[in-house]
Amino acid sequence: MSVEEHYAVGIDIGGTFIKAGIVNGAGRILSKVSVDSRVDQGADAVVTATAEAAESAGQEAKLEWTQICAVGIGAPGLFDFEAGVLLSAPNLRCLDGKPLRAMVAEAIGTPHLKVALENDANAAALGEKWVGAGRSVRTLVLFTLGTGIGGGIILDGRPWHGSTGFGAELGHQTIVADGVRCGCGNSGCLEVYGSAPALIRHFEEAVKSGAKSKLAPAESVTARDLHEAALAGDAAAIQAFEETGRYLGIGAANVLNMLNPEMIVFVGGMTAAGDMLLEPIVSEAKRRAFKRSFEAARIVFGELGNDAGLVGAAACAFLADGSVSI
Amino acid sequence: MSVEEHYAVGIDIGGTFIKAGIVNGAGRILSKVSVDSRVDQGADAVVTATAEAAESAGQEAKLEWTQICAVGIGAPGLFDFEAGVLLSAPNLRCLDGKPLRAMVAEAIGTPHLKVALENDANAAALGEKWVGAGRSVRTLVLFTLGTGIGGGIILDGRPWHGSTGFGAELGHQTIVADGVRCGCGNSGCLEVYGSAPALIRHFEEAVKSGAKSKLAPAESVTARDLHEAALAGDAAAIQAFEETGRYLGIGAANVLNMLNPEMIVFVGGMTAAGDMLLEPIVSEAKRRAFKRSFEAARIVFGELGNDAGLVGAAACAFLADGSVSI
Repeated sequence: MSVEEHYAVGIDIGGTFIKAGIVNGAGRILSKVSVDSRVDQGADAVVTATAEAAESAGQEAKLEWTQICAVGIGAPGLFDFEAGVLLSAPNLRCLDGKPLRAMVAEAIGTPHLKVALENDANAAALGEKWVGAGRSVRTLVLFTLGTGIGGGIILDGRPWHGSTGFGAELGHQTIVADGVRCGCGNSGCLEVYGSAPALIRHFEEAVKSGAKSKLAPAESVTARDLHEAALAGDAAAIQAFEETGRYLGIGAANVLNMLNPEMIVFVGGMTAAGDMLLEPIVSEAKRRAFKRSFEAARIVFGELGNDAGLVGAAACAFLADGSVSI
Repeated sequence: MSVEEHYAVGIDIGGTFIKAGIVNGAGRILSKVSVDSRVDQGADAVVTATAEAAESAGQEAKLEWTQICAVGIGAPGLFDFEAGVLLSAPNLRCLDGKPLRAMVAEAIGTPHLKVALENDANAAALGEKWVGAGRSVRTLVLFTLGTGIGGGIILDGRPWHGSTGFGAELGHQTIVADGVRCGCGNSGCLEVYGSAPALIRHFEEAVKSGAKSKLAPAESVTARDLHEAALAGDAAAIQAFEETGRYLGIGAANVLNMLNPEMIVFVGGMTAAGDMLLEPIVSEAKRRAFKRSFEAARIVFGELGNDAGLVGAAACAFLADGSVSI
């Protein structure tokens, strides 16, 4: 049986949507469904929605459960991987402390299937490593850019979970010792200098310090507004991307010096800004990292877009099942 | 044959001294010699000194070369591990680009023996993991504190070399985005805030900002002077240790959040200061790191002192040889 004939369900549980899809052993998505997460209705509702999404994805791909190797689930938060428990998930509070692996397995009703759990950023990292930007490398580090900054680490082809499952919180490295307060309780985290809200703060600061902008004074600008304005030559918007990229470049340089990966991948909505964001990241990383470590790595944006988590979750399923080498 | 009857040569090549010793498979040092590094006489002189030190260590332990399993060498710098080449070593410039593994093997004249190379901080980390502070853990991160700050990472019992051998430069993570210039070319590295020279700078700054000290004005104080003064209650010296520990705690917190190890170990001369340095490290790490990651790890000083590198180099030898599980 060729890898194309092996099938896994990849599930990406987010705070708003649950995405499920059938992915074959070559990394191709055969079907994809998206449903409401129902987080306001409690853990059982989320788990039921997850199982229904998986079922729908199977039907859409015209597959029976008996044809599926395994199920992989990516979700934001800290896991007890051995016990299959989601210990803490800020955007899925109703699942805090729940035995997610067992609950999903029961809801799907297929006790013979392996259900693999993974942190969403690690899943995205494994997805990009498998069939995305990192398909030629063994070791990559991924940053997810959004409201927060998450991290995934793939070492020698396998996700690094840390010793107790909390590894890879790359957004919560201190890069400004006495810097801006972060939601995590620390101050000066990369997240408060390189996330989407930080981009907007850098824009506001640019305006305050005299940079011209057609968007100012504005009550509420979004990262997308800033991207469009920057493309149109808006000075303050351009400065905001440069500043955000500069800080992300510090985070990248730290990873280069500390872990010497083959690749650093940035994913998430903010990467729509393209070179406007990537160029300052790369130039700052180059300025700061050891020359050899910088030259040993490529710094890129992801290639799988919003599918990275789903494809990566399927990759975790294949890893657990062992039927397809990732 | 018990592990006590397996023997390796551990060699720790430094810029001033080369230390060599016979270490048995239980991690006990049976003999130890120290010779001048002869770096001013060129690469061949250093290699000859290394081979002579190894030979002397064997004689002192009354062992023949035929009784030795393997040789392990720890040295500061970046390696091409596959080729056995020391690519770059700031304190051993004469060895830059030299095929150290082959040169030492030839000088020792025992072609049947495996010669393992390791970065000195990784060797120390493996030593502490094997029979030191980390003997009950599988995953630890080590900082070497001295004129500079080096790093070693042991993941699941094995040194992490990075994808091209340059991993674990933990002293060169940026913790102050627009901070003090570092010798590596970057600015704001942990090394310029947590090393021995940084301790002295923090002392001078404390004095400047009005802290009382019996040592001021002094032309040149050492870390040891500051330790003694702090023990005697010197306000500026105490403040210097607190400030240095605070920055080292930032480095520790970053490692906790990014890698979630079971243990962080600090080694090097500065650890002689004991709790005066350890307490601010731990309290700052606690303040900054995720609670779960902080609680999953112990932050300690090494237990092997100056022998960590030598014992760790022997551990690398046993790892390469496979005769003793590390």
